[in-house]
Amino acid sequence: MTHEIAVVPGDGIGREVTPAAVDVLSALEIDFEFVEADAGDAVAEETGEALPQETYDLAASADATLFGAAGETAADVILPLREAVDSFVNVRPAKAYPGIDAVRPETDLVFLRENTEGVYAGHEDRLTEDVATLTRVVTQSASRQLAEFACEYVSEGDHDGFTIAHKANVMRETDGVFRDTVAAVADENGVETDEVLMDAFATRICLDPTQFDVVVCPNLAGDVLSDLAAGLVGGLGLLPSANVGPERGLFEPVHGTAPDIAGEGVANPAATIVSAAMLLEYLGYDEESDAVHEAVESTLENGPRTPDLGGDASTEDVTNAIIDRL
Amino acid sequence: MTHEIAVVPGDGIGREVTPAAVDVLSALEIDFEFVEADAGDAVAEETGEALPQETYDLAASADATLFGAAGETAADVILPLREAVDSFVNVRPAKAYPGIDAVRPETDLVFLRENTEGVYAGHEDRLTEDVATLTRVVTQSASRQLAEFACEYVSEGDHDGFTIAHKANVMRETDGVFRDTVAAVADENGVETDEVLMDAFATRICLDPTQFDVVVCPNLAGDVLSDLAAGLVGGLGLLPSANVGPERGLFEPVHGTAPDIAGEGVANPAATIVSAAMLLEYLGYDEESDAVHEAVESTLENGPRTPDLGGDASTEDVTNAIIDRL
Ligand SMILES: CC(C)[C@H](C(=O)O)[C@@H](O)C(=O)O
Ligand SMILES: CC(C)[C@H](C(=O)O)[C@@H](O)C(=O)O
Repeated sequence: MTHEIAVVPGDGIGREVTPAAVDVLSALEIDFEFVEADAGDAVAEETGEALPQETYDLAASADATLFGAAGETAADVILPLREAVDSFVNVRPAKAYPGIDAVRPETDLVFLRENTEGVYAGHEDRLTEDVATLTRVVTQSASRQLAEFACEYVSEGDHDGFTIAHKANVMRETDGVFRDTVAAVADENGVETDEVLMDAFATRICLDPTQFDVVVCPNLAGDVLSDLAAGLVGGLGLLPSANVGPERGLFEPVHGTAPDIAGEGVANPAATIVSAAMLLEYLGYDEESDAVHEAVESTLENGPRTPDLGGDASTEDVTNAIIDRL
Repeated sequence: MTHEIAVVPGDGIGREVTPAAVDVLSALEIDFEFVEADAGDAVAEETGEALPQETYDLAASADATLFGAAGETAADVILPLREAVDSFVNVRPAKAYPGIDAVRPETDLVFLRENTEGVYAGHEDRLTEDVATLTRVVTQSASRQLAEFACEYVSEGDHDGFTIAHKANVMRETDGVFRDTVAAVADENGVETDEVLMDAFATRICLDPTQFDVVVCPNLAGDVLSDLAAGLVGGLGLLPSANVGPERGLFEPVHGTAPDIAGEGVANPAATIVSAAMLLEYLGYDEESDAVHEAVESTLENGPRTPDLGGDASTEDVTNAIIDRL
């Protein structure tokens, strides 16, 4: 069976790290068909559209999409792409790697971020010159779908349960629905949960990240808290993510376009290659996924390393070292 | 001139640290009249109301209010109290103290948090069994008032300008109004600003907190990002805050009721005493405010210390040591 993979490098270092991940996937004995498509600042400049319809359509029909990064137009690209693959959860592991500088090297958790609603539902109005409003939407159905995924996730992995992070003491009705629905689904499935206010979470993860393992949260909370965890493990440079839908997925590094080093061929491909490992797992290639994870970890630990990690290797050197270790 | 100070200890260690701060204020040669009032879980248990009308009215008429902490009912107490004093900005310094364990000891910044709107405006609806909504409100007028305060704040202090933290790439209209209004007011006042997305802020402050000095943000962003900074300086235990209105203010430690140690007389009073120092500054007693700040810093550095900081002193010991150093 051939898997069609949409490849959307985007802008900046997206154009360097995405081909690197494709090289790694190509080194495996799996029948992939890669189809490349445009998105981001450069194509917006040319055509006026950051996300051309054909890129959207490709992501909506391919088995999986590998995305690099986009610049100023990031929101115009990534939010519709998440919708194109019908992804209801954004899986964001945040783990420090051995040998890599981190504020909190003991950090090892995963965020399961609601990926369709909250403030991202995006109903905004300018009521008067003075007053703007945004309608935040939270539904039982989206919360339930996320919670079912979370229950499966903790049962399949080596996890005791999960933490629900929210702000239901202020957003009583909306985050109340989120918290109550997620907790009820967990209960039905015999999965243990605890809960924490998102502000308290921000304090507590700095003081002791080992308190948390799997964290389930609304969309914006997941955005901010996972970026916080990224800071604790040493930056966005190593973090992958998976936007998971029922039939397809979108896989992307958490980092951006890194304009300061774009074009120099020294971008760290690790986050994108680990995102490709998440893609493999999504498609059912667990063994190959593990192999890629291990090859990346071993390369991070033993080198070669790109300049962001204190080395002087190129993107290509690192990619080849990872392929050699497969 | 007598200043009427409403004293609202609340629950848990609020009942220990608030009297400690009153002792410090009483040791100064200023004519204060302290009037105590109830709020929190205990009074809610008795009367059904977490914030009795007379406490609200007292805060709304006193020159300043000193608040301790509230338990489960925190939101029912603190949000109306902020409104009672008509406070439009919550000033939250986050600074590591010499000799105190911190993940990022070089942290030294202050958040100016919008204190009236955003998701805290709190218009929620349960549209159907499935769907809940919350209307987030952002106005030019509140943004302008906050920005004018921020401009004065940086001009009076030793600050080069301020950073605007927001999420206008997703909340384009609402955070767009916030960002554009705040930036325009700064521009009119010749104050320099830069801006950062709130998620990027969360990563960047972990990697290097010295990048930031004064940070102006919407209500929920300020809640979460200041608690994050609290984690970097070693917890909420040392952080004060000031809810500033045009004619009165509400001063409170950022910490909660600490039920695990409440009643033992060993709560650290530092955050509440520094909040009292902010109260002094608000009322124009700059010299006395500085003296309290210095006495607290010296006591944190040289002891005695409460158990949370590795010492074995009581709340009273620490309070007396601070008073002795005035
Ligand atoms: C680019 C932006 C819209 C996006 C988000 O807020 O989800 C990004 O921050 C992320 O987390 O992938
Ligand atoms: C108790 C809660 C309503 C409050 C807030 O969210 O503002 C608290 O977290 C704070 O920051 O003072």
